Amino acid sequence: MAGIIIDAKVDRIQVPENLRYFRLIEEQKERCAEIGCNGRMFKFGLGQSPFPVPAPLQKALSLHSGKGTYADPIGNTELREAVASFYKKNFRLDIEPYRVITGHGAKGLIFSLFTLLTGSVIIPSPGWLGYLPQLRILNVPYYRLYTHGAGNFKVRPNTLEAMLKGLVKTQHLLILNNPGNPTGALYSREELTAIADVCRKYHTFILSDEVYGLLTYDPVSFVSMGEIYPEGTFVIHSLSAGMGAGGFRLGSCIMPEGSSPAIIRDVAKIAATIYTSSAVPIQEAGIAAYRSENEMDQYLDAVRNILRIMTTRLARLCSDTDGIRVTIPKAGFYFMIDMNPMANLLQNAGIMYSNDLAPALISHPYHIATVTGEAMMAPYGDFFIRIAATDFDGEEALLEYLERSPASDAEEEIFFTKYGSDMIEGIRMFKKWVTDIRDGSFRFSAP
Amino acid sequence: MAGIIIDAKVDRIQVPENLRYFRLIEEQKERCAEIGCNGRMFKFGLGQSPFPVPAPLQKALSLHSGKGTYADPIGNTELREAVASFYKKNFRLDIEPYRVITGHGAKGLIFSLFTLLTGSVIIPSPGWLGYLPQLRILNVPYYRLYTHGAGNFKVRPNTLEAMLKGLVKTQHLLILNNPGNPTGALYSREELTAIADVCRKYHTFILSDEVYGLLTYDPVSFVSMGEIYPEGTFVIHSLSAGMGAGGFRLGSCIMPEGSSPAIIRDVAKIAATIYTSSAVPIQEAGIAAYRSENEMDQYLDAVRNILRIMTTRLARLCSDTDGIRVTIPKAGFYFMIDMNPMANLLQNAGIMYSNDLAPALISHPYHIATVTGEAMMAPYGDFFIRIAATDFDGEEALLEYLERSPASDAEEEIFFTKYGSDMIEGIRMFKKWVTDIRDGSFRFSAP
Repeated sequence: MAGIIIDAKVDRIQVPENLRYFRLIEEQKERCAEIGCNGRMFKFGLGQSPFPVPAPLQKALSLHSGKGTYADPIGNTELREAVASFYKKNFRLDIEPYRVITGHGAKGLIFSLFTLLTGSVIIPSPGWLGYLPQLRILNVPYYRLYTHGAGNFKVRPNTLEAMLKGLVKTQHLLILNNPGNPTGALYSREELTAIADVCRKYHTFILSDEVYGLLTYDPVSFVSMGEIYPEGTFVIHSLSAGMGAGGFRLGSCIMPEGSSPAIIRDVAKIAATIYTSSAVPIQEAGIAAYRSENEMDQYLDAVRNILRIMTTRLARLCSDTDGIRVTIPKAGFYFMIDMNPMANLLQNAGIMYSNDLAPALISHPYHIATVTGEAMMAPYGDFFIRIAATDFDGEEALLEYLERSPASDAEEEIFFTKYGSDMIEGIRMFKKWVTDIRDGSFRFSAP
Repeated sequence: MAGIIIDAKVDRIQVPENLRYFRLIEEQKERCAEIGCNGRMFKFGLGQSPFPVPAPLQKALSLHSGKGTYADPIGNTELREAVASFYKKNFRLDIEPYRVITGHGAKGLIFSLFTLLTGSVIIPSPGWLGYLPQLRILNVPYYRLYTHGAGNFKVRPNTLEAMLKGLVKTQHLLILNNPGNPTGALYSREELTAIADVCRKYHTFILSDEVYGLLTYDPVSFVSMGEIYPEGTFVIHSLSAGMGAGGFRLGSCIMPEGSSPAIIRDVAKIAATIYTSSAVPIQEAGIAAYRSENEMDQYLDAVRNILRIMTTRLARLCSDTDGIRVTIPKAGFYFMIDMNPMANLLQNAGIMYSNDLAPALISHPYHIATVTGEAMMAPYGDFFIRIAATDFDGEEALLEYLERSPASDAEEEIFFTKYGSDMIEGIRMFKKWVTDIRDGSFRFSAP
């Protein structure tokens, strides 16, 4: 019997950034071990909440651990109603519960939506890598919309319109990640309105991935595309980022206003076909998450503020480096370093493409583990680095914050240096790496 | 803004049999309500364990309700090792743990495997509907292998070889559901060996769906294809059927012997792309399920025997009807009624195709809810009915069985009539329906 022949498309499916990141660290540790280095890494790669699962979710999961029967593929009614009320209250979205569908993580849901819709998909780059390999599995045509020029890493109505004008007149779906991964940027009401106007004109729906919405440092500054363009937006949320429960795998989507019951049934059919439903005890945890108002409000307030302190201060620390640009985030875990101003120096040091950045950064003695290049949908010739400011003790930080939150800029700085010491050291090492490149004392050769 | 345009393939994706079944009941209840009937239904459609989630799973889920971090897309190492030891012990499979992959339910895993492999898929019919709509989403070519002639609803080596001879010489994947849904049939070692010989000859892998294996009434009579054809078989298991935890969504696959680490990584990449991983607290429940030897052995022994009593006795009761054939199951929840001998009578009564059977059976005053036709991959012209013997109080039956198991044929009959009274009444109604068709007093018109 000859070996297993895998399908040709499998090679075209990019390895998700977290798998790539873990492998990067493992491989560097092996190389370090060979030279007697213990290989301690500065971990800036993992986009995962550092905070514990909130108590109401844990309690509900425990209480419903005996729920073993099959469920509705798009989630039980109570969960869908709870999601609807939660986003109505938090994001001023007026949603009939029938429009809420839930599924096995935002990824599972997005895959179902890509299966549902005809037409092509427009993916802004750089961005989260997750969408593109799903489209390749499903053979859905897609176009990258580059945003790093005048766009300052945001989708701009004029560049979007220029692209849509050139495409076949069919239905399109624009991916909009707001707040943004990797930049931590937020779209204003005006920006969203202008984008929606273009989309209306070109029969373009929007998949508005708002999984970091709850982590907007100044919560009232977040505007959902579901409010601006209700008839054309699929709004995606999940328990992962905001509620510290990435391992729970529960996502939700608010379908466009006016979606017919038949279309909701189609999504249910697709989800049932691909993965049946999300796990039933997990759905119960989700109900608790969306219903435990005071407890969750307190948790989210603390989490937002801690992330604001850690992420913006780290970004500012980093931005104080000659020859690079840094986005100062307004939400979530990430900021982005744009090293294009140093492109010539990088190439002199043997870092020829954006994919080379990650292996160069992790090489001995720097040990800076990050996501770059293809893993963040960066064009090959553009030198971008995603920094996740998540490597701190979220449980301890949360306890201290809930007991006594820092009340001044000075106290916040103390909080930052106390919990962020590993990350601060990592950014110092990054600066050394930049200096070494600048003065020619580091030369990268692919491992 | 015009409405959402769904992709053409969505209409080609069949509605899963359980969604179809629930809708069938709902619609009949509405019709019954119109004529003042309370619409109590005889429920023979749902292939779901009637037993409670075993205590070790519940405890583990509760204990690990705080595990919110992301996980390996194919499951954590401890889980994969636990699965390997469990099947090594129960099904005489000698498996290195690296070959075990786990995922979000058997369905999620099978979808990933269909994405992985090139070539075409051979699906025996009648059978479980789940595979086919997955293949349609992925645009994988497939062939139906009809088994209702000389095959007696099993794949036979000669019919398989006749089909494979006619196909393009590429890689194929044969679906083998053993024990079988809907027949409850079991393949013998000799039958499996002969099928494996044909598969070896034609570069054909087997996806051996053994989710009912743990529910073989006489456990030693079950032989896994993974033992017979280790180098060519993907063996599928899940918590759903055997461990009463369909809502938990945890499936596993034993990859073929000799699978390269690169192929395991490819499956991980695909699973990560489509749905990230199974839920992490659920993985912990899985570890408990596969590790709690004595407690699970006792549970499985009771569950097997209760199902044997209920299912075989119900099938025998049913088989005592003129003009029909009934499979007597050896495992699982189901048996199948073959009504082809009555085909002319059925067509005289207005039941023209196998898809008409389910609406005819549920019509007033019969109220027999079942799965037929396309929902069980039956050819349109063949009159098959799937009966799930699951409508009884599994919790009570389990408690009584564990306290004092019936010790004789007479005691088993008492146990059967005590817990199976609703189902027995349903089979009586089925017989009345058959009589009414025979004497021309029932005429079906599509609702």
